[in-house]
Amino acid sequence: MTTRSLADDMTDRIERAALPDLSQPRRMILCQRNGQITPVEDLHAISDLLMEPDVFIWVDMQNPEETDIQLLREEFLFHPLTIEDATRHHERPKLDAYEHYYFLVFYAIGYDPEHARLVTQALNLFVGSNYIVSIHAGTMAVLDQTLARWQHNEQQFNHGGGGILYELLDAMVDDYFPVIDELAERIETIEEQIFARFSENVVRDIFALKRELLHVRRIVAPQRDLLNILIRRDVPIFERTSVIYLQDIYDHIVRITDSIDTYRELLSSALDAFLSVQSNQLNQIVKVLTITSIILMSAALIAGIYGMNFAYMPELQWRFGYVWALALMIVTGSGLLIFFRSRKWL
Amino acid sequence: MTTRSLADDMTDRIERAALPDLSQPRRMILCQRNGQITPVEDLHAISDLLMEPDVFIWVDMQNPEETDIQLLREEFLFHPLTIEDATRHHERPKLDAYEHYYFLVFYAIGYDPEHARLVTQALNLFVGSNYIVSIHAGTMAVLDQTLARWQHNEQQFNHGGGGILYELLDAMVDDYFPVIDELAERIETIEEQIFARFSENVVRDIFALKRELLHVRRIVAPQRDLLNILIRRDVPIFERTSVIYLQDIYDHIVRITDSIDTYRELLSSALDAFLSVQSNQLNQIVKVLTITSIILMSAALIAGIYGMNFAYMPELQWRFGYVWALALMIVTGSGLLIFFRSRKWL
Amino acid sequence: MTTRSLADDMTDRIERAALPDLSQPRRMILCQRNGQITPVEDLHAISDLLMEPDVFIWVDMQNPEETDIQLLREEFLFHPLTIEDATRHHERPKLDAYEHYYFLVFYAIGYDPEHARLVTQALNLFVGSNYIVSIHAGTMAVLDQTLARWQHNEQQFNHGGGGILYELLDAMVDDYFPVIDELAERIETIEEQIFARFSENVVRDIFALKRELLHVRRIVAPQRDLLNILIRRDVPIFERTSVIYLQDIYDHIVRITDSIDTYRELLSSALDAFLSVQSNQLNQIVKVLTITSIILMSAALIAGIYGMNFAYMPELQWRFGYVWALALMIVTGSGLLIFFRSRKWL
Amino acid sequence: MTTRSLADDMTDRIERAALPDLSQPRRMILCQRNGQITPVEDLHAISDLLMEPDVFIWVDMQNPEETDIQLLREEFLFHPLTIEDATRHHERPKLDAYEHYYFLVFYAIGYDPEHARLVTQALNLFVGSNYIVSIHAGTMAVLDQTLARWQHNEQQFNHGGGGILYELLDAMVDDYFPVIDELAERIETIEEQIFARFSENVVRDIFALKRELLHVRRIVAPQRDLLNILIRRDVPIFERTSVIYLQDIYDHIVRITDSIDTYRELLSSALDAFLSVQSNQLNQIVKVLTITSIILMSAALIAGIYGMNFAYMPELQWRFGYVWALALMIVTGSGLLIFFRSRKWL
Amino acid sequence: MTTRSLADDMTDRIERAALPDLSQPRRMILCQRNGQITPVEDLHAISDLLMEPDVFIWVDMQNPEETDIQLLREEFLFHPLTIEDATRHHERPKLDAYEHYYFLVFYAIGYDPEHARLVTQALNLFVGSNYIVSIHAGTMAVLDQTLARWQHNEQQFNHGGGGILYELLDAMVDDYFPVIDELAERIETIEEQIFARFSENVVRDIFALKRELLHVRRIVAPQRDLLNILIRRDVPIFERTSVIYLQDIYDHIVRITDSIDTYRELLSSALDAFLSVQSNQLNQIVKVLTITSIILMSAALIAGIYGMNFAYMPELQWRFGYVWALALMIVTGSGLLIFFRSRKWL
Repeated sequence: MTTRSLADDMTDRIERAALPDLSQPRRMILCQRNGQITPVEDLHAISDLLMEPDVFIWVDMQNPEETDIQLLREEFLFHPLTIEDATRHHERPKLDAYEHYYFLVFYAIGYDPEHARLVTQALNLFVGSNYIVSIHAGTMAVLDQTLARWQHNEQQFNHGGGGILYELLDAMVDDYFPVIDELAERIETIEEQIFARFSENVVRDIFALKRELLHVRRIVAPQRDLLNILIRRDVPIFERTSVIYLQDIYDHIVRITDSIDTYRELLSSALDAFLSVQSNQLNQIVKVLTITSIILMSAALIAGIYGMNFAYMPELQWRFGYVWALALMIVTGSGLLIFFRSRKWL
Repeated sequence: MTTRSLADDMTDRIERAALPDLSQPRRMILCQRNGQITPVEDLHAISDLLMEPDVFIWVDMQNPEETDIQLLREEFLFHPLTIEDATRHHERPKLDAYEHYYFLVFYAIGYDPEHARLVTQALNLFVGSNYIVSIHAGTMAVLDQTLARWQHNEQQFNHGGGGILYELLDAMVDDYFPVIDELAERIETIEEQIFARFSENVVRDIFALKRELLHVRRIVAPQRDLLNILIRRDVPIFERTSVIYLQDIYDHIVRITDSIDTYRELLSSALDAFLSVQSNQLNQIVKVLTITSIILMSAALIAGIYGMNFAYMPELQWRFGYVWALALMIVTGSGLLIFFRSRKWL
Repeated sequence: MTTRSLADDMTDRIERAALPDLSQPRRMILCQRNGQITPVEDLHAISDLLMEPDVFIWVDMQNPEETDIQLLREEFLFHPLTIEDATRHHERPKLDAYEHYYFLVFYAIGYDPEHARLVTQALNLFVGSNYIVSIHAGTMAVLDQTLARWQHNEQQFNHGGGGILYELLDAMVDDYFPVIDELAERIETIEEQIFARFSENVVRDIFALKRELLHVRRIVAPQRDLLNILIRRDVPIFERTSVIYLQDIYDHIVRITDSIDTYRELLSSALDAFLSVQSNQLNQIVKVLTITSIILMSAALIAGIYGMNFAYMPELQWRFGYVWALALMIVTGSGLLIFFRSRKWL
Repeated sequence: MTTRSLADDMTDRIERAALPDLSQPRRMILCQRNGQITPVEDLHAISDLLMEPDVFIWVDMQNPEETDIQLLREEFLFHPLTIEDATRHHERPKLDAYEHYYFLVFYAIGYDPEHARLVTQALNLFVGSNYIVSIHAGTMAVLDQTLARWQHNEQQFNHGGGGILYELLDAMVDDYFPVIDELAERIETIEEQIFARFSENVVRDIFALKRELLHVRRIVAPQRDLLNILIRRDVPIFERTSVIYLQDIYDHIVRITDSIDTYRELLSSALDAFLSVQSNQLNQIVKVLTITSIILMSAALIAGIYGMNFAYMPELQWRFGYVWALALMIVTGSGLLIFFRSRKWL
Repeated sequence: MTTRSLADDMTDRIERAALPDLSQPRRMILCQRNGQITPVEDLHAISDLLMEPDVFIWVDMQNPEETDIQLLREEFLFHPLTIEDATRHHERPKLDAYEHYYFLVFYAIGYDPEHARLVTQALNLFVGSNYIVSIHAGTMAVLDQTLARWQHNEQQFNHGGGGILYELLDAMVDDYFPVIDELAERIETIEEQIFARFSENVVRDIFALKRELLHVRRIVAPQRDLLNILIRRDVPIFERTSVIYLQDIYDHIVRITDSIDTYRELLSSALDAFLSVQSNQLNQIVKVLTITSIILMSAALIAGIYGMNFAYMPELQWRFGYVWALALMIVTGSGLLIFFRSRKWL
């Protein structure tokens, strides 16, 4: 495994902006025994605690440091590759199954109204039958809330690791809906603007929105597949009952990807409709140009004719010549107008 | 499971408008024993009745309240997640298989001519071997009719839960056809308008129709998959004979999705054709502009030449100079006309 | 099963026009025994005949009436759903496998040169090991021919029901080729027209052709899948040897769907090419407009200058002023022409 | 099986032109025994020869006649359907597996530089464990070369039927590469032309190339699937070692289909880019038109103003009036030029 | 197997430019025994060494010559087809499984900033349980580095052939990221340019980028499938532990193909947006043309009218006629401006 400067791709650029990289590292180890949740201070006690029956341990690490990584390696005996993945940024959603635990990367998606853009944050999870390890860069509201709810025993969380995993993923996926709503609202705004006055911003917005939909899809679609694997596969780590709950999250994600795909199709149609409307506007403008310039040129031609310097031009000497010329212009112009109107050009 | 404000997505917006949210809650429990259908008053009797042989119970709930939910939980012992799904709005079609029952969400689609838009309404169904529970928000014509037909024994419904499920789904899917007809008719109208005079409304209509087709497809396609699962899977709850009937509904839905996909392709072609026709119109207009302005400018140039003030311009003194100039204009104009016509520009 | 007014979709509209709805109902029951084919008059004898060894019965019904349906129900014991399907119009191709027979809906496609449109006609078939029942609305040339060939023993038909099914389907699929040829020819005509003079009809034709290709595809593609099922599935009703023959028909249908898909892609390319050619024409026209109007306006400007009424304009008194002005116009015009030609605008 | 005039589809039209239909029928039967290859004269000896061990027979038929067909039927006992397929033109690539032999239709593709179009030629092959029958219309260079190489023992062909099949298919697929190269070169030419001066030929070329790519794909893609079946399926006719060689051909064909798909995508992009460049050219032309006509019209207006016949126009009497007017025109024109340049219109 | 001039397709053209074909052939054979790595001089010793336990041999060949090929044939007993593939250029990524070894073709991708284009280089690998043979044309930095790291024992490479394969592929795939970054950066530049001033280069860039994305995809996608096969298949050559490492590379490649697909969609959207912006620019230009020419023509008409030579034109004798005329022009022009502004044309 070589050290490397990782790809600076789209996900990263968006994500990086949102990561409060300066926030302090933090570690919290909680142990649930006999319905009692207490912090664990002695790090070397973890591997022993995990052997005891009816014990559940939650380790949460924010901006993990070298000692944290050592803990993962020595107390939990995780595979070096997963530890590397968990402590590095910028992975796509993934699920690795090992003999005694799952390694999951799941994404929180939020909408940053200040910069009007999507913000994604990875949550790395190691889930065993009687422990969960959550690793993340920067503070993560959804995790802190779930942790607090568990800690204060507000709600009887069921089924050990599977139950907590469900609560966490459910909370994260719930947070997707406002984002999807935000996108839906922007699509609606775009649709309204299409048939109103043109502004180049509509194209910009369509393009930006497509970009964000692609971005969300790139995160949500692999998470759907990942949950599908979790549900289908025979998992010795979770009880069967947890699977029904995971199915529920799966249904939510399917619904979100459905929405995203529908929105993408709508945006494509919107752009097509927009081009068509633009093309029609051009038609209208050229029609106006054509009709007015023909009328004006006809009148100018008449004026030009009576501006010729021929010695013998009978109308010139005529008393009503001037009026005649003006009348001729008006009659010609009106005639053309009527003609174009009769051909439905106006 | 956190309480949450659910995503306000496309389905919802359309659906919400149609839901008569103010309608009264209603509950009806009917028990069929020995060919006799009687209402059940004592709620706690249900679980006992279900144990008896040759009994079939239909529970219909409109706008369920807390006591209804309690009934589902305590008498039928349904899984909390399905109860939550069934009493909330806005889910996509789904099928959850439990050991003793199926939970289904199926959609009725109607066309609201007043607001010229599609209206969808979810029907939540719990189907067991000797009971069916139907839950819905607002009154639902298709359900009431089927319930009435069953209740008045008009027609011998066969095969218990499977038979009633077939009757219900068949009636719902039958209601899709007029909607599809309505859409087909609108596509036909659009096709006629494309080659007629332009109106921006055609683009609007194409766009709106695409939207509705996407909407219907989003509901119908998962229902097709769902029926496919019902047919393929070995179902201990229904007799094998019911499956043949479900196959019949499946065929209808396949035909509807086929139609929808064909219509979508037709609409895309229509938009392309429309752009092409528009582009041709522009060509025609610009041609007219070009030809007329060239003719008028040529004539104006002649007039301009004879309007010059040179001391020595022989034609000016000529007796027929004026006629000569006019004749020159007419000849030039006619010549250009003939030239353009010979090049097939007119 | 409710009575209903069935969806009036595309297939139907096209089909209905072609159905000779006024033709008489007709029933023909033929029994082959010991190589002898005789008509059967006694309807109740059918179920007995079917029990005998080495007997093959062909029942053909045109516009079936109530007594025919009774026959299907009582003598053949077909499932009520299939009887309903068989006696109703407008189903898509289908294949239902029952224990002792297959129910098939297959389509004949023809080209009606008078109305320049496709005509489809459904043939409903019940195929058992020793009988075939064909049901159709209106006369059906391909069926009558096959029936006649069988009846007059012109040709030794092999393998009982499977053999006759092969002969029927083969004859029907053979009739597809002239239709495909007709479409191919029209595509060729379109391709030639694209690069010739524009006519709005090309767009119309492309659109109409796309419509018809979609229509044929909608019928042929499910028939391909249906044949694939017949070939793959282990069929106790046909002998293994029949399957090789069905494979042959399958190959024909695959080839037809291949052609249809190629034609669809060609049509899309054609429309794109057409738009491009149109766009080029616009460029040409605007170029001509630009160049001529610039030349004419330059000459008119010169004329305008010498039409000014200043007291001191030396050229005006000059003997060759007039010639000078005209020469100036010609030189300017020629100069512009050369300039534009040098920039490859002409 | 009815006699019929087969569909006149795209493949056929291209192929027919290339078929030297007037060439003589020819039959060649070679028998390899103990490394010795000798012609077989007695037709009825074939079925006996095939029974002997260590004998391999190659029968090549060009434009087969009735006696040839009889040979296939009586000595080789091939299925009537395959004989019909093999002696008729215009089938797509196919592979039929029978108990003791394979029937294959494979296509040679060549480029006819004279008519600048693709030429395809079908080779029908019956391959058994100790014989190969090749049937084709017209002479076929690639077959004659392989036959000659085998006949003169230049090279030790391995593995009986499988080995010869490999040599034949390999030689045919090798001939595809120059065709693909030819197409690639034409795409490159097109790409260069897109950004050069427009010529309607680019669109024509793109369209023609798309057509040919579709045509090649239609032949190559089924051949890929067909080889895949040959490789995957457990084939008692070939030794296992042959399969490795077939895999090699399969890899070549996959590469060719990959190239074709890439080229198709490139052509689509090319057309899009072309439309965009065209659209830009129109923009440029209209810009030039706009700017020049505005400048010329401004100057003409000034001339028009000083051409008015008012009795009191002070400038007219001014000594430098004429110069003033001309200067005004030049200043206005220059001003407009500077203005448009400052707005980046030039 | 005929000698042939291989297809000159896209891959080749790009690759060829980058291959330092003149570089010297080179062969290096290293043997690891008891943690000691020593060069092997005696070629015939290889097959004996391979029999010994705990020996690992790495053979690296650059621009292999006849003696190298003989070595592959006689010491390693590789299949002739793979030897041919390995010593020829221009194959696509491939994986052939033989009984005792794998043959792999994997590609290094680099970005040549000098010529601003992608450079690909094939690495052919034979991987057995205790040996690896690497064959390549020209020097290959990534291989030399890995070889050096192994040779100098910098890092304990694990798991024999599987371990070295992982190190090699990992290093090669790591090198893809800067290339993807480069492409991402260029897409970003394009996006910025779309909404800025037009330059034909944007279309060129989009087209070139699409080409390169297609090119990278054509190499990366088969490598993804290839790794998937390596992971899924039961491989007796590698230990199970290696598979987890291959999974890691697989994840990287999936991420890269994801990025490529996203970029391709973005480019398509970009081109659409670009066309829309272009179309809007045309609208703007035509609007300016229309409005200015109408204003100028109106003023010119007024001047033309007062330039007529009628004997009786009251204004001409008027003292303020000239001013009146000019005022009329200004008022008309301003009126038109106000009118167009009121209709939102400006």
